Amino acid sequence: MTADASSLIPTIRRLAAQLRIDSIRATSEAGSGHPTSCCSAADIVATLFFSEMRFDPAAPRNPDNDRFVLSKGHAAPLLYAAWAAAGAFPRADLMNLRRIDSDLEGHPTPRLSFVDVATGSLGQGLCAAVGLALNARRIGSDYRTFVLLGDGESAEGSVWESAHAAVHHGLDNLCAITDVNALGQSRGTLWGHDLERLARHWTGFGWQTLVVDGHDVGALQQALANARGTTGRPTMILARTLKGKGVSRVEGKDGWHGKPIPKGAELDEAIGELEAAQGGTPSRPSIPMPTRSRRPALAGPSPASVLERTPPYQVGDAVATREAYGRALVALGAADPRVVVLDADVKNSTFTELFERAHPERFYQMFIAEQAMVGAAMGLASQGAIPHASTFACFLSRACDFIRMAGISGLNLKLAGSHAGVSIGEDGPSQMALEDLAMMRAVPNCAVLYPADAVSTDRLTAAATYHDGFTYIRTTRPKTPVIYAPEEQFTIGGSKVLRHSGDDVVTVVAAGITLFEALEAYDRLRDEGIVVRVIDAYSVQPIDAATLIRAGRETNGAIITVEDHYPAGGLGDAVSCAVSPYGIAVHRLAVQEIPRSGRCEELLERFGISATRIVQAVREVRMG
Amino acid sequence: MTADASSLIPTIRRLAAQLRIDSIRATSEAGSGHPTSCCSAADIVATLFFSEMRFDPAAPRNPDNDRFVLSKGHAAPLLYAAWAAAGAFPRADLMNLRRIDSDLEGHPTPRLSFVDVATGSLGQGLCAAVGLALNARRIGSDYRTFVLLGDGESAEGSVWESAHAAVHHGLDNLCAITDVNALGQSRGTLWGHDLERLARHWTGFGWQTLVVDGHDVGALQQALANARGTTGRPTMILARTLKGKGVSRVEGKDGWHGKPIPKGAELDEAIGELEAAQGGTPSRPSIPMPTRSRRPALAGPSPASVLERTPPYQVGDAVATREAYGRALVALGAADPRVVVLDADVKNSTFTELFERAHPERFYQMFIAEQAMVGAAMGLASQGAIPHASTFACFLSRACDFIRMAGISGLNLKLAGSHAGVSIGEDGPSQMALEDLAMMRAVPNCAVLYPADAVSTDRLTAAATYHDGFTYIRTTRPKTPVIYAPEEQFTIGGSKVLRHSGDDVVTVVAAGITLFEALEAYDRLRDEGIVVRVIDAYSVQPIDAATLIRAGRETNGAIITVEDHYPAGGLGDAVSCAVSPYGIAVHRLAVQEIPRSGRCEELLERFGISATRIVQAVREVRMG
Repeated sequence: MTADASSLIPTIRRLAAQLRIDSIRATSEAGSGHPTSCCSAADIVATLFFSEMRFDPAAPRNPDNDRFVLSKGHAAPLLYAAWAAAGAFPRADLMNLRRIDSDLEGHPTPRLSFVDVATGSLGQGLCAAVGLALNARRIGSDYRTFVLLGDGESAEGSVWESAHAAVHHGLDNLCAITDVNALGQSRGTLWGHDLERLARHWTGFGWQTLVVDGHDVGALQQALANARGTTGRPTMILARTLKGKGVSRVEGKDGWHGKPIPKGAELDEAIGELEAAQGGTPSRPSIPMPTRSRRPALAGPSPASVLERTPPYQVGDAVATREAYGRALVALGAADPRVVVLDADVKNSTFTELFERAHPERFYQMFIAEQAMVGAAMGLASQGAIPHASTFACFLSRACDFIRMAGISGLNLKLAGSHAGVSIGEDGPSQMALEDLAMMRAVPNCAVLYPADAVSTDRLTAAATYHDGFTYIRTTRPKTPVIYAPEEQFTIGGSKVLRHSGDDVVTVVAAGITLFEALEAYDRLRDEGIVVRVIDAYSVQPIDAATLIRAGRETNGAIITVEDHYPAGGLGDAVSCAVSPYGIAVHRLAVQEIPRSGRCEELLERFGISATRIVQAVREVRMG
Repeated sequence: MTADASSLIPTIRRLAAQLRIDSIRATSEAGSGHPTSCCSAADIVATLFFSEMRFDPAAPRNPDNDRFVLSKGHAAPLLYAAWAAAGAFPRADLMNLRRIDSDLEGHPTPRLSFVDVATGSLGQGLCAAVGLALNARRIGSDYRTFVLLGDGESAEGSVWESAHAAVHHGLDNLCAITDVNALGQSRGTLWGHDLERLARHWTGFGWQTLVVDGHDVGALQQALANARGTTGRPTMILARTLKGKGVSRVEGKDGWHGKPIPKGAELDEAIGELEAAQGGTPSRPSIPMPTRSRRPALAGPSPASVLERTPPYQVGDAVATREAYGRALVALGAADPRVVVLDADVKNSTFTELFERAHPERFYQMFIAEQAMVGAAMGLASQGAIPHASTFACFLSRACDFIRMAGISGLNLKLAGSHAGVSIGEDGPSQMALEDLAMMRAVPNCAVLYPADAVSTDRLTAAATYHDGFTYIRTTRPKTPVIYAPEEQFTIGGSKVLRHSGDDVVTVVAAGITLFEALEAYDRLRDEGIVVRVIDAYSVQPIDAATLIRAGRETNGAIITVEDHYPAGGLGDAVSCAVSPYGIAVHRLAVQEIPRSGRCEELLERFGISATRIVQAVREVRMG
């Protein structure tokens, strides 16, 4: 340890006491929260913030700041207290914790400028931190990424997915610290205070692993310096701590998780004890500023120049939308250096291998670890990259909780899922996404796109890239015919009315693979003298309510929806949500039961979403 | 190795060749599938089936059979070929692989009697196997559980969640084998053939870890015998293999994942090569029968005796539904030994700690690892246990892909999620389930229940327990008043009309916490001389369509839904799906944006689902 570092120890100790005092006071005032989880980690956070990290407290979004992710998000008051101590905002604000008019929420969200990704669902912080560490390379910055885990959350598989990823990518700019206080929410953790056992997990995964006393500031400084000097691999510091450290009433005791100390004598006693140990007010620490990136922040082109590009397809070509997605990414990547792509070992199915070939330095292979993939994409998205992450749509469900948290974080994340629905055929239900629209629509700020042909896929991939927010693109396995001219425009929230007359008896709303069934049904019905309106609802969320309401009203107040998805949460629900306040009847064709293996056409028929079934439904609706 | 085991080696080798031949022929005939992934594992599977496992090929559901889970489900043809070789069905049937009229699907599902849980979403098999191994203890059987993983799927976090769980529970009756063929779908795996590196992961996690040549039958036998003789911990056998082993054209080569060998000269050459190496037809092996359980299979009481139990609540009591859930489980556990409970370190929030206290031997702590929890519950459910697994509803999203696969598996699984919606208050959005109804409704064979008070929770927990299939119960954090008399009956698919007159101007449909807002709105409106119908839609799926349609028709064709959930996929969508074909207008009150921390009442108001908002909506609908 340098003399300089060791001279800071008394100040850091006083600051740690201050963080404890602030965390306890704020949670007592709020009447809820996790003060004991803050107390165990206070020395770690004080050492990080006031002796290790380089950042500008006045500009938390400075791209060259060292990053800190509080994976154990329930210790939010500690994080807030640290930023207040650093001077980012007045300490007095801490007493507004958890109030509806304060951004100091129960768990951290990016409403706060010093939070990159929301935490509070355990096991996600390390995944995001991998993305933050990859981003440092992307922008040529020497910032370091720190993440504080709880020991309890180390049972989450996502932690080990990102442990693999960090080693594979050689992230020596990443340092994780685990606050091993040995107590979970409801009981002791898997490991208790057997840090050697936990250390074997990390060592076995290839991490440099250091075991320290998490209340010994000097030891923490030394471990952090060791991590800083280590090349080629990430470091895990396992810090032995006591939950509730510093308050004898609760220190090291089970049964105090998520319980504030009652105001009055108990609170006064706790604060008194901490103040006595503190021995005076800490001085305001001086925090080293970050160095500027070696190359300027990557700026993008004007979106218009990219969006005006003409898709390289002609009407009648047969192209799978998943391939059109991959090809669009290549073009977007060429035009805009912020575009990066993440894969989970299916790049030859999603066609992101085309991007890897064209832009290998911006392609991140995360192997079969969807949580690590989405988590890393979240970290990258928080720092100005435009990450497209994709796998089979059904396997995105593996990252459902990350997707939920990405929505809460308001991130500019782009997901795509291929192999939608029964149309994949012989591989069977485990590979068929039939609930992905429900999952993605349940993120209220996510745009959900489901293009039918290559032209619309190309356009919508570009539109998603330059949409300021979360997007999802659903693609199809089999080839489908190109039906749109290359100059056709597609917008988030739009739709296309493909068949239309004054005599339409009903409106058929389809998207993706079922659009071709609807068009086939149109042809068959026309031969019988029945005409229907056909709408391509390629933007499932937001959906083009105005067009649907008008169509419903003009076609006898009746709409038939047809989708390669279960009935719940998909296209039918989206359409119904838009039109049902107006009393327009919606009849749904969807996959009503668990499907099975078979040929694509057989399955569309068997599970009730074929042209034949649409024709039948039109006749039934017409009969009333 | 015993002389007996070594004498089997030539037969096993011939059988392994047969499994390769069958897998290749079947996939070539189907025109799709994963023959090279079968070939790498053929010696492993042949050794397991014909030298290690004790089972009755004529009775695959015999509860004392050794269990085998093919976690790398894409090697399904190998599994089918093994069961055919064991005599379970004619080998000729293998040529029906992947046909719509065959149960030999692209990936295994329990449509087949020898499959316990569907696989094909990687990384789930070991989780289910933990449940199968726990089940052996539950029923007092000495059966052993084997699971075959791919190396690629070892990147999935769920594998490591269950690795923790297996060690914690000391599952020495569990033996995992990893087929380390070094090739994933699109490229080499994380580890390639560095088995020592992979071994350090497993050793670090506390498993006995053995590294063998996966094409050396004798070595495999020895490793399996070693595992069988090991006490106190599970065994991982890492088997070095070559993808496509035995067919020179593809053996050990990248670019052959998921590709059948083309029929004609290429297929003939491959089969010829395998037959030449086989050196003649294998004899039908004799497979040792399992021993009977030491105690009889656990039978349940007549459901009626449990269902007729009177809930211990009186109208007006204030009881959180999560507490009523925990108390109901205690009673159900006392009445029925098949009832078991799994937790993810939130037992003091979900109140399953009451069950742990009452029935500790049937309570499984899985720590903060929701995939491992649901996966183990899936394994237990497949063997006649009635597993209730619960955590915060938002964290069930962590296991979304497992839930999807549990639906495909048709399992008798019972999930419950607590802390639904913004009503949890100050903890903020990361802890609020606002998409769980969407997730669970998107499992088409899952009953989704959302009781409002303690009596209905008690009744519905019993109904779920004796429902033959997948169920989900959503519970609420704050206490709510008991509104139903203890003798009131509740059924899956039912509802309660709580306010009703001939003058109702509109129907308000609520469930859970919003039911009390609806009742309050009723009172306020009645004071203005407006009456509305109020329905408790406690069964969100299946929903009581008949009652809703009748109510809609009797109240001016208008329904207002109000739910503590995002609009997509929840109660509004469920109601709309039921009534929208009849042109009944549905107006939705739901949480339309990402919420924040605050007090429960503040949040209900701010996010538009309070009594005040319902009153306002009724007035608006009335005005038209």
